Amino acid sequence: MRPEQHAQLALLLEVSGTPKPGNVDRCRDYPTLRFEQFLAGAVGALDGLDRAAQSDAIGAAFETAVRGMSEQEGGNTQFGALLLLVPLVRASSLDSLSPDGVTTIVTATSIEDAESFYRAFDHVAVAVDDPPSDIADLDVRRGSAAIPSVRDREVSLYDVMELSADRDGVANEWVTGFSRSFDAADRLRGRDEPLRTRTARVFLELLAEEPDTFIEKQHDAQTAKAATDRANAAIAGDVHPDQLAESFVSAGINPGTTADVIAAGLFIALERGMRV
Amino acid sequence: MRPEQHAQLALLLEVSGTPKPGNVDRCRDYPTLRFEQFLAGAVGALDGLDRAAQSDAIGAAFETAVRGMSEQEGGNTQFGALLLLVPLVRASSLDSLSPDGVTTIVTATSIEDAESFYRAFDHVAVAVDDPPSDIADLDVRRGSAAIPSVRDREVSLYDVMELSADRDGVANEWVTGFSRSFDAADRLRGRDEPLRTRTARVFLELLAEEPDTFIEKQHDAQTAKAATDRANAAIAGDVHPDQLAESFVSAGINPGTTADVIAAGLFIALERGMRV
Repeated sequence: MRPEQHAQLALLLEVSGTPKPGNVDRCRDYPTLRFEQFLAGAVGALDGLDRAAQSDAIGAAFETAVRGMSEQEGGNTQFGALLLLVPLVRASSLDSLSPDGVTTIVTATSIEDAESFYRAFDHVAVAVDDPPSDIADLDVRRGSAAIPSVRDREVSLYDVMELSADRDGVANEWVTGFSRSFDAADRLRGRDEPLRTRTARVFLELLAEEPDTFIEKQHDAQTAKAATDRANAAIAGDVHPDQLAESFVSAGINPGTTADVIAAGLFIALERGMRV
Repeated sequence: MRPEQHAQLALLLEVSGTPKPGNVDRCRDYPTLRFEQFLAGAVGALDGLDRAAQSDAIGAAFETAVRGMSEQEGGNTQFGALLLLVPLVRASSLDSLSPDGVTTIVTATSIEDAESFYRAFDHVAVAVDDPPSDIADLDVRRGSAAIPSVRDREVSLYDVMELSADRDGVANEWVTGFSRSFDAADRLRGRDEPLRTRTARVFLELLAEEPDTFIEKQHDAQTAKAATDRANAAIAGDVHPDQLAESFVSAGINPGTTADVIAAGLFIALERGMRV
């Protein structure tokens, strides 16, 4: 399969891993966010992933992917995952799928890439925190309305990611050589279990190691820390992952960033030979 | 979404409908045929579906779709569904998605289309019955080895379908204006339930109305008739569909043709405005 096909498959495998506590998965839906909408999101995202395989315009490819992803009624299904997959697909199609290779790509992004990134927020509502007050004009929720500020400040897409890396786990991947994504890929390839179980297990490990920034945004740091503690308890065998899944879903605790990193890890693992 | 995207989504929605007794579905796998392999099959099939949207070469589009579908370790996941979807996608991209419109397309298929169809069998093992002895040289299991016979006898792909329409539910769709596929689409659009439940319900109705020819091939006519009786019992409330699903899976009773028609019905429903 080509890189963009593996990226689409990674999106599908991510949502199918189960039990991934708090996430929509093969066995669980949220009332207003359903499994089928993730399938449609993955179908719609392919054009943008294909664009990432063909050209250096990372921002335009991302915007295309998000626009396609949004053609379903669930809203934001895979925004963060695509922000990881787009540069990874680009790296892979240049035969440089490595921390250094993808870092070369993301550090080369331009102001135009940042503009496209802001335009992507016009297509779908994404949960984000308030930016620091000195860069309030770069609030991504302004969407394309923020583009004049992007131009005035001459920020590249990499700069935008750097600005939020301390409070956003996806942005943090951009500035750290996608370290957790590559680590997840190694773990996914290292296990000998059905894919859905492997995916769920590595998801739980990642959540246990680091509080999820999507939970922080939707709730607060304390809730995110508590979710990580609970994931550790599940790994220790003190709570069943299925039970954790039920309690997270009913409390609306959705570790979306961890799921994004898993999607990126699945992509890397597929590109490196993991079979389905 | 474009027709080929809706066709890919239809493949994904089909396998995600649950409970679809005897099929791999969102909640059930067979030991050697798993949900993830249907996801990979849908990803791989897109190039062929795209080709169907672009050109009249139905056979080549089908072979491309099957070759892509086969890039996973489960073997035949969606061969029959693709044999329905390819002409339907073609019809839709010509703005003629109707029984007459698709009939115009399939009756116009050529000897070259038949050749490509036989080549598709080189990519994957497909369960089929022995053909009548007077056309043993056209046995599809011979794959591309049968192509000289196809040329000698000057059979089009439509002719090939006509030859097996009485014992193959997919071929029968080709010669009856895809009547069950269009009927399934109407039923899918007419229900107000979550998509996975709707898909499963219409699947059960179709199975209750007509014995599944894939079960006939894998087992025999009696087993297929018994499965249809059991589906009727489930609709009457005498057996729970989940219980039926468990018993079918453990007996290896897989109503694959009914699933193929559901995939075609989902495609038509999506093209006619069904939302996800």
